[in-house]
Amino acid sequence: MLDLWNHYPIIARKLETVNSLINQRLATQNNSVQDLLAACAQEQGKLLRPGLFLLFSQLGDRQQQDEQQLFKIAASLELLHRASLIHDDIIDDSPLRHGTITIQAKYGKDVAVYAGDLLFTVFFQILIETMNGTPYMEYNAASMKNLLLGELSQMHARFDKAQTIGEYLENIKGKTAALFKLACTEGAHFGHADKNTVALAARIGENIGISFQIFDDILDYDSTAKILKKPVLEDIGQGVYTSPLLFAVAEHPEKFTPYLDKKQNITPQEIKKVAKLVRNYGGLAQAKQLARTYTEKALSDIDQLPHSETTSKIRKIALVLLKRNF
Amino acid sequence: MLDLWNHYPIIARKLETVNSLINQRLATQNNSVQDLLAACAQEQGKLLRPGLFLLFSQLGDRQQQDEQQLFKIAASLELLHRASLIHDDIIDDSPLRHGTITIQAKYGKDVAVYAGDLLFTVFFQILIETMNGTPYMEYNAASMKNLLLGELSQMHARFDKAQTIGEYLENIKGKTAALFKLACTEGAHFGHADKNTVALAARIGENIGISFQIFDDILDYDSTAKILKKPVLEDIGQGVYTSPLLFAVAEHPEKFTPYLDKKQNITPQEIKKVAKLVRNYGGLAQAKQLARTYTEKALSDIDQLPHSETTSKIRKIALVLLKRNF
Repeated sequence: MLDLWNHYPIIARKLETVNSLINQRLATQNNSVQDLLAACAQEQGKLLRPGLFLLFSQLGDRQQQDEQQLFKIAASLELLHRASLIHDDIIDDSPLRHGTITIQAKYGKDVAVYAGDLLFTVFFQILIETMNGTPYMEYNAASMKNLLLGELSQMHARFDKAQTIGEYLENIKGKTAALFKLACTEGAHFGHADKNTVALAARIGENIGISFQIFDDILDYDSTAKILKKPVLEDIGQGVYTSPLLFAVAEHPEKFTPYLDKKQNITPQEIKKVAKLVRNYGGLAQAKQLARTYTEKALSDIDQLPHSETTSKIRKIALVLLKRNF
Repeated sequence: MLDLWNHYPIIARKLETVNSLINQRLATQNNSVQDLLAACAQEQGKLLRPGLFLLFSQLGDRQQQDEQQLFKIAASLELLHRASLIHDDIIDDSPLRHGTITIQAKYGKDVAVYAGDLLFTVFFQILIETMNGTPYMEYNAASMKNLLLGELSQMHARFDKAQTIGEYLENIKGKTAALFKLACTEGAHFGHADKNTVALAARIGENIGISFQIFDDILDYDSTAKILKKPVLEDIGQGVYTSPLLFAVAEHPEKFTPYLDKKQNITPQEIKKVAKLVRNYGGLAQAKQLARTYTEKALSDIDQLPHSETTSKIRKIALVLLKRNF
């Protein structure tokens, strides 16, 4: 899980505490769901959101920080993320996530619906413990809503080859960037940074999130299952038309129509042909350029943060996310 | 929707406002999900939970009440209920709910997962507006968690004919009674009743809820689709073994084994035979007696409430729920 955070030993150590906290919160007396929740607790990903939260919290005034509160908020971000992943995997019928069998594949879709719901409640319970009465309660609820509206819009846009890059960007702003923005903003705020830093953190988080999602979509065309630990070339068959495809289709729509009009009946061989067309018509190159634009927006805001060791680390993370192959 | 509340014109009128509020909250600028959320808004049931909330709020001091706050909290209870129904219908593969086609049947399971999630976020947003910073935030989160744990335990107990009545009662306490308890407690509290009344309201709500669910389970054996506006004799095939069956199985296990051991492969003819056995071996009569016990517990607490017109109405509702055929 911690490949990314290995170069940040303090954050990596804190993330271990965050993980223990999640395990502890998902432990239950209820025998019938104990196995299930233990499985939800073990579903470790890159811990990108709690890691960013902890990193941004270091921009603040350490003297004023409540470490236990920070661990709990970090855990809340990961729980919200995992709850949404559990429900995503139901929709995508996904057998694997980060190389591990998914909750829906292991326990069935029915159980996965409730398991995701249960994680949402634990998320809210932690918010209530740590920030009840503050405006951050509403910020969290609104972020969760944006996340879901992004997912629903993406679902609505399935198999829509006329989708614009603008619409695609709107969807990933909700689906992915909302939570990155929340993580970085909360990090700066609950780390007791000044208001200007909190406002910068919000913009940096959102732009890193957009860039991250564009890269994630590129990896579906550009990586191998071994590196990614998940199946590749899944998006086309599922009708999730992301920026590499949308850019290439805009160049030569007629080349893609015969394949894409087959919608879910497209064969694996045809998907490979489409992927080749995407590459040949510059879809991957244009998508990479788009991701770079958002990373550069983030970098220009990072440069406005007070110069410190933490700021350098944030800069490095943003750059790593642009070249990642995990 | 308001069959039950027609005899309570003040509550019925207030419930219209609650419904408008729900419609308004589910209206969205997002074209792709507008239809879906409008459909979620129109899914009107009996409005039992917001109705009970409003009725119990009348036990308090009207001078101190904030009517807008009360409408919003009433809406939050209905939204939590509807969110859980949308997810329930996915699990039950249910085509109809209160005579209306379900979200999962109309839009597909995938959309229904996110639609339920979205209603949960609107539920939390209303809580944050009306009670942020109060202990009732945690009470709501815990009630939602109990509701989900009850659903999961029930799912875990599917096709388990050795399930005890005690286990059955534990599941329905979570799955149904938790929300009735919350509605009545919040009604008394936010209606500004005294502490003793709030404590009584909690017990009354829980016992009405248990009785209500036992009756709901009896209706699966005892009603017709026309009256119930939903399919009957569904529980056996789905492995949801409720009190009528559990009581009858306890009397003559050997009569049921050949049928129940077929689990989901039981035929519609065999289900009818099992239903007949349930009736013949006193399962329905014993289940009705069980429901009556909980209604009587509720009535004895209702008798301890200050004598008032509201208390008489609460008494009447509790009795109606015991003889309902809707």
